Amino acid sequence: MSSSALEFARQNHPRFLDELKALLRIPSISTLPEHQGDCRKAAEFVLAELRRIGMEHGRLIETKGHPLVYADWLHAAGKPTVLVYGHYDVQPADPLDEWHTPPFEPTERNGNIYARGAVDDKGQVWAQVKALESLMAANKALPINVRVIFEGEEEVGGEGIADFVASKPADLQADFALVCDTELFAPGLPTLCVGLRGMIYTELEVRGARTDLHSGMYGGAAPNPFVALAQIIARLKDENGRILIPGFYDDMIPPSKEELAAWKSLPFDEEEYRKSEVGSKTLVGESGYSVLERTWARPTLDVHGMPGGFTGAGAKTVIPAKALAKVSMRLVPGMTPAKTFALYKSYVEKIAPAGVEVDVRLIHSGDPCMVPVDNRYIQAATRALHEVWGKDTVFIRSGGSIPIVGDFDRHLGQPSVMMGFGLPDDNLHAPNEKFNLKNFELGIQSLIRFLEEAGR
Amino acid sequence: MSSSALEFARQNHPRFLDELKALLRIPSISTLPEHQGDCRKAAEFVLAELRRIGMEHGRLIETKGHPLVYADWLHAAGKPTVLVYGHYDVQPADPLDEWHTPPFEPTERNGNIYARGAVDDKGQVWAQVKALESLMAANKALPINVRVIFEGEEEVGGEGIADFVASKPADLQADFALVCDTELFAPGLPTLCVGLRGMIYTELEVRGARTDLHSGMYGGAAPNPFVALAQIIARLKDENGRILIPGFYDDMIPPSKEELAAWKSLPFDEEEYRKSEVGSKTLVGESGYSVLERTWARPTLDVHGMPGGFTGAGAKTVIPAKALAKVSMRLVPGMTPAKTFALYKSYVEKIAPAGVEVDVRLIHSGDPCMVPVDNRYIQAATRALHEVWGKDTVFIRSGGSIPIVGDFDRHLGQPSVMMGFGLPDDNLHAPNEKFNLKNFELGIQSLIRFLEEAGR
Repeated sequence: MSSSALEFARQNHPRFLDELKALLRIPSISTLPEHQGDCRKAAEFVLAELRRIGMEHGRLIETKGHPLVYADWLHAAGKPTVLVYGHYDVQPADPLDEWHTPPFEPTERNGNIYARGAVDDKGQVWAQVKALESLMAANKALPINVRVIFEGEEEVGGEGIADFVASKPADLQADFALVCDTELFAPGLPTLCVGLRGMIYTELEVRGARTDLHSGMYGGAAPNPFVALAQIIARLKDENGRILIPGFYDDMIPPSKEELAAWKSLPFDEEEYRKSEVGSKTLVGESGYSVLERTWARPTLDVHGMPGGFTGAGAKTVIPAKALAKVSMRLVPGMTPAKTFALYKSYVEKIAPAGVEVDVRLIHSGDPCMVPVDNRYIQAATRALHEVWGKDTVFIRSGGSIPIVGDFDRHLGQPSVMMGFGLPDDNLHAPNEKFNLKNFELGIQSLIRFLEEAGR
Repeated sequence: MSSSALEFARQNHPRFLDELKALLRIPSISTLPEHQGDCRKAAEFVLAELRRIGMEHGRLIETKGHPLVYADWLHAAGKPTVLVYGHYDVQPADPLDEWHTPPFEPTERNGNIYARGAVDDKGQVWAQVKALESLMAANKALPINVRVIFEGEEEVGGEGIADFVASKPADLQADFALVCDTELFAPGLPTLCVGLRGMIYTELEVRGARTDLHSGMYGGAAPNPFVALAQIIARLKDENGRILIPGFYDDMIPPSKEELAAWKSLPFDEEEYRKSEVGSKTLVGESGYSVLERTWARPTLDVHGMPGGFTGAGAKTVIPAKALAKVSMRLVPGMTPAKTFALYKSYVEKIAPAGVEVDVRLIHSGDPCMVPVDNRYIQAATRALHEVWGKDTVFIRSGGSIPIVGDFDRHLGQPSVMMGFGLPDDNLHAPNEKFNLKNFELGIQSLIRFLEEAGR
């Protein structure tokens, strides 16, 4: 155990936090074209730091979108190699008026740091970089061979890294990946994520009349694309949360009895979750399944917005020529994006009401994935986490999607250790995103110890 | 017959058109707060002209919103009094990129003038003003007593004029109203509108979680307001266009056999209408009813837009905390806005899916109305129109709503002569709104002759 690396991390923590704030101030929103320059700025910021701490071959790898950040240190002869992964891009910050402090002015409050990207994923990227710095500073070497790859398109589908992984697998050769983009199951409870849902994100466009029409003159005879979209969506998912696309559930592999039993023993109170996290009148979803099953091991369908038509204040009596719905589905092991999209598209085309034309477009997708619990790096991680947190690790899944984990598995043959330090109420993708400051600190320590254990 | 007034109108027509263009350049969009000053500017423009041509007691009448324009000339002893009505406000111009020339730069092209408000309703307001000017210039007097009232809130529900009519009926005392806000049934076919649909315009808000949530983490357990809204809308109207709100159709009075027979003889080709006006794959609506019945004599429901959630480019995996739908219904004689809204609201509250809260708000409403064909002013209008257009007048209804016509009837006891000169393809409320230049000219002549006939 390298107490010197841990000691370095403790002594330098205030600086680590200041650096993280500087990174959080860069609005690297990957989905908005006007922030393209900010994405590059964030990439360069991270690259400069990797070089400064002694990582080698540091470079930006250009993609069709935002660049990848690469660096390595491969002098630990006879040791395994880890591929360290994270992303420097963030979600859009809207609705802005719901933030208590501005999304790109990181603010400490109640033991947290608030900012867009605080936990997803800049805070966790920075924990990885600072663990590497601490190990290098304390030992003038790393205990394991390391390749670092950070991407800037995780929030928009990760096409750049997926292309790179598929086309240049040798450049990222390693024994396993360390992915820091998940969370603790509960405060103080060390957690490894061993399953992820996949997803397809689509746009469903409905076109009716050639041009916008007056709803008085034409109402009753002209097709209304929003009504048609509503009718389609209502036939995609019933009021019990069951998805109505024929064949949708056919290939899914349900969780094992052991896994289900372990989930039952997790500290989880559905009523508390409803009140403190969701805040809705009731929870919804398929009856006969617990909330953890519904969010980890059942596929779902959500609508994110319906652009088009009149959305201003007041009244405009228009029948819009077209309407759009942003629809995504989460997939579970056994399901594939390609087949799911094909089933969905053909069903939508079949049920589209008379008078309208539909166009179903795939925006991006990711495979679901699972990692075996008896993997040696998963085992090394549990030892490191026990030491830092003083507790046994729990194995969970995540309802979210990290498509790159599937790609690491498929193209590089690397299992992923998904070790994350967020909390369930960190407001990912929502206003007032935060990262617990203690978790940032213990996260760095956990990563230091994990890299040491994995290199033994 | 005052050939001198017609002669004046003919000689001065180029100037009339230039003046109309100046009025069209004022972007008096009543629904957008940032155009409040423009609405007042348009009101002042019209008022100045009424004063210039010799109308008396010209003034702006303040309302909670945009001002009314009033003027009168009451020296035709022993003659009836007409209340001349129109509106100087216009619809928003979006989507801007679909206009061939800018909406507030009036442009002559192919015998039309293109601009937002060209036909709805500035062109027709100006035809009224120019008819009054021609009569006054030719005779130094008017053939009938005239009160003019123009409003600036027709496109946002007309609250100001409705309040004024209800609270100061004596100020608008007259024998009948002349409302120029409708259209010819077909080019060259003189038309009087004797029936209007009413409406309710509502906002339907659905709230689920307290804040926006990540659709990966919470998808399957957190309510999705857009999905809930789609499920509600799909239960408001079926795929055959029938509205499913219990009791919705109970009070409606169907058109008479005579009226239905007259409509059948109108020059109307449903396939041509589909192709040239609507441009959709097929027409929609209730089977068993002609298009004219569906748009004139059947109530309908339309969705105009669904604000909220993520509407930008690309992908954001959010479950929005709330979603909104702008929903309106057109009502036919027998139905009332109050009862219809109550039925709708209680039905929506009843069918709202589990997990969400709904809020149903009435934005504005207007009564449906009918005018008897044997009314003496309707008869005077048919004589004037025959003279100018050389054809018998057809009596139609309009699917649109002119709530003030109901108010004139209820509060002032005035039947309305709805004489309009637009064409069915004039793109009201849509990009590339236009007014046929010949119809503008013949409209002025028709109004001159009508005021003379009505004053006989």
